[in-house]
Amino acid sequence: MLHKIINLTVRDVRFPTSVEQHGSDAMHTDPDYSAAYVVLDTDRGLRGFGLTFTLGKGTEIVVCAVEALAALVVGKTLQEIVSDFRGFYRLLTSDGQMRWLGPEKGVIHLATAAVLNAVWDLWARSEGKPLWKLLVDMDPKQIVSCIDFRYITDVLTEKEAVDILVKAQEGKQQREDQMLKEGYPAYTTSCAWLGYPDQQLKQLCTDALKSGWTKFKVKVGADLEDDIRRCRLIRQMIGPNNTLMIDANQRWDVAEAISWVSRLSEFKPLWIEEPTSPDDILGHAAISKALAPLGIGVATGEQCHNRVMFKQFLQASALQFVQIDSCRLGSINENLAVLLMAHKFQVPVCPHAGGVGLCELVQHLILFDYICVSASLDSRMCEYVDHLHKHFTSPVVIQDAHYMPPKDPGYSCEMLEASVQKHQYPEGDVWKQHMNK
Amino acid sequence: MLHKIINLTVRDVRFPTSVEQHGSDAMHTDPDYSAAYVVLDTDRGLRGFGLTFTLGKGTEIVVCAVEALAALVVGKTLQEIVSDFRGFYRLLTSDGQMRWLGPEKGVIHLATAAVLNAVWDLWARSEGKPLWKLLVDMDPKQIVSCIDFRYITDVLTEKEAVDILVKAQEGKQQREDQMLKEGYPAYTTSCAWLGYPDQQLKQLCTDALKSGWTKFKVKVGADLEDDIRRCRLIRQMIGPNNTLMIDANQRWDVAEAISWVSRLSEFKPLWIEEPTSPDDILGHAAISKALAPLGIGVATGEQCHNRVMFKQFLQASALQFVQIDSCRLGSINENLAVLLMAHKFQVPVCPHAGGVGLCELVQHLILFDYICVSASLDSRMCEYVDHLHKHFTSPVVIQDAHYMPPKDPGYSCEMLEASVQKHQYPEGDVWKQHMNK
Repeated sequence: MLHKIINLTVRDVRFPTSVEQHGSDAMHTDPDYSAAYVVLDTDRGLRGFGLTFTLGKGTEIVVCAVEALAALVVGKTLQEIVSDFRGFYRLLTSDGQMRWLGPEKGVIHLATAAVLNAVWDLWARSEGKPLWKLLVDMDPKQIVSCIDFRYITDVLTEKEAVDILVKAQEGKQQREDQMLKEGYPAYTTSCAWLGYPDQQLKQLCTDALKSGWTKFKVKVGADLEDDIRRCRLIRQMIGPNNTLMIDANQRWDVAEAISWVSRLSEFKPLWIEEPTSPDDILGHAAISKALAPLGIGVATGEQCHNRVMFKQFLQASALQFVQIDSCRLGSINENLAVLLMAHKFQVPVCPHAGGVGLCELVQHLILFDYICVSASLDSRMCEYVDHLHKHFTSPVVIQDAHYMPPKDPGYSCEMLEASVQKHQYPEGDVWKQHMNK
Repeated sequence: MLHKIINLTVRDVRFPTSVEQHGSDAMHTDPDYSAAYVVLDTDRGLRGFGLTFTLGKGTEIVVCAVEALAALVVGKTLQEIVSDFRGFYRLLTSDGQMRWLGPEKGVIHLATAAVLNAVWDLWARSEGKPLWKLLVDMDPKQIVSCIDFRYITDVLTEKEAVDILVKAQEGKQQREDQMLKEGYPAYTTSCAWLGYPDQQLKQLCTDALKSGWTKFKVKVGADLEDDIRRCRLIRQMIGPNNTLMIDANQRWDVAEAISWVSRLSEFKPLWIEEPTSPDDILGHAAISKALAPLGIGVATGEQCHNRVMFKQFLQASALQFVQIDSCRLGSINENLAVLLMAHKFQVPVCPHAGGVGLCELVQHLILFDYICVSASLDSRMCEYVDHLHKHFTSPVVIQDAHYMPPKDPGYSCEMLEASVQKHQYPEGDVWKQHMNK
């Protein structure tokens, strides 16, 4: 625990995914999955690895923001940080000059996530545990000491948070054993990106069914007739008993969302994801209310920028599925607050994943949620996308459509150094070749 | 109008205001008023100047973001941009890769504001008019064509916006004449920054009263007993008929805001500004409801990050005074949307200003609001802070506590080149000297 952080490096790593339309949706038509990738060096040789996910252009801005935060981290020992993790969180998020750039939103908060993810990774490695296990073994008071309750005490006090965690101690060991045996249920988004032609969608869906997948998400929102055709196709392929979700990636205004999704209701989607602006709490509430009679819930969160926004989405009954993100929020510290608030409102958490590294990261959080907070798998599942895992030293393990708990120490987002160098932007070989084309 | 933009430069300009505690409040204890300062060069020699306001550290991140946006601007003619200004706004705010960094919030949106402010300045200069006059002379349809209505049509449609503007044509000329003669009413924040000792506060207040000021804002939120003493002092000095406002700069949680402000109600503040997180719409609504019986309104907006958030603040009756900001929102394009929504809800607009350049910029918007939208001065006034104006080529003119309409062409945010060079960070003389101390 006395590891002193002596250096922070951050690199701009980009994968040219747009070439094959992986990740394409109604608002992000050409994403190059990317990351601001952070490495913390300590005086004793232990290292911490963290990242935040981006879509290509602009990653250099996040890198610049991480560099601005570095001075608040370098020189501290792990012990100093984790013995007052709430204070450290606030140091990063409430600097008197830098908070003007957020506060706790956009580039500066993505950068905060990358840095804090690396600190958590370092902590878990120093304890020799995978991160989910570090969390599971912490006592309720220590967990709560990592959370900044500023701006959420009207919904969740520190005492309530402790009470939730204490209550969930019952059955904890069985749930941990169950997870180690069965894993956490997942759904797949890999079959139906918006840019995929029907033939590819069919083939991917056939393969996924063979591999045991039962829950499928389809991108919608660009063209209604296309959506009807694609939803019909996939519903025919998966049959009436498997689960279908649809995702509009913020394409619509409120009234349009309601009418568009109503037209797709015959395909029985479990949820419509991101129907409108991620900032529009009251809009999501209106959509939720209108779609409830059709049996369709609203899911959102991958661009919900902090705990204050999630608080209100819950207060306003504006979502029926909470989609936490391991890189949009201020790392585990802020995600813990959201998991606890979601539990208080009895709204299931179904994390956002995919991109690069998001599956590796968020699996730890959802394991903790089941073992130590929700104690339920009802209406719960974690997103899975089958891309870019090979670039990590401890890639996710999926068995029979379940995330198997990671066993290596840390937060699972260390990338292979060769991959980092090859994909560094703009100097890596992949980009040199790309630009010469 | 055929001016082609051939170059964009952006510089990191910082003023060491923290040394004398100018601008200090409960959350920003040591601001160095700063800007990402943009200059657009055109092929015909005309130039456009724009900026976004920051607090020192992290300005380099905004500079980096402006550089990322530059490719979307350079090479375009002014004609191309303003003939589809809505489209251009969306080009900047909805790039398929960069919108992940916001969308429309934080660093990337501050950078968008700086770039668009420069484009508007260029437009006004090309017409030989101060910006407010350019707006006042535009017909309603052209004004509306600058606004991106995405995500706000549930509250304001394009047709409703046109109707509001058409209706306000009546009496427009008289109001313009009135403004040219009397100016727009202002209030001062210069007397009572949190870091100022009582003696300094007294002296500044005495001077301000002599200069004709009648409306005063006091920073609160760090210590209740201090606040009581300072509010008592200033209320005694200004008497019962002048106006007092208080500003907590997001210091409190919801319950704390209500109890703290209740304790200050005896000093009859018109509003409490930024009582809690700028993201907490429902929190502000609860505070508004609790304070209404005490005759105290809630004001917020300087960190309200886009039109979607303002929409909800209005829908939820979460504010009684709309404080637009010329650099937080996406320039005039997005501010026009907010002015029109505020009018629809009949909530007065009282802009945020101060910092560096904010007074120069926002005066144009509030003149337009009065002449072309609200047609009312009831409960309306614009913030004024007496700092750093000397660095501008066309500084604000205050007469008898009123903003006098600017007469020079443009958006008034061109800085003296000597000031820019002297304050450029870190290479300017001011900073070289500062670092050598």
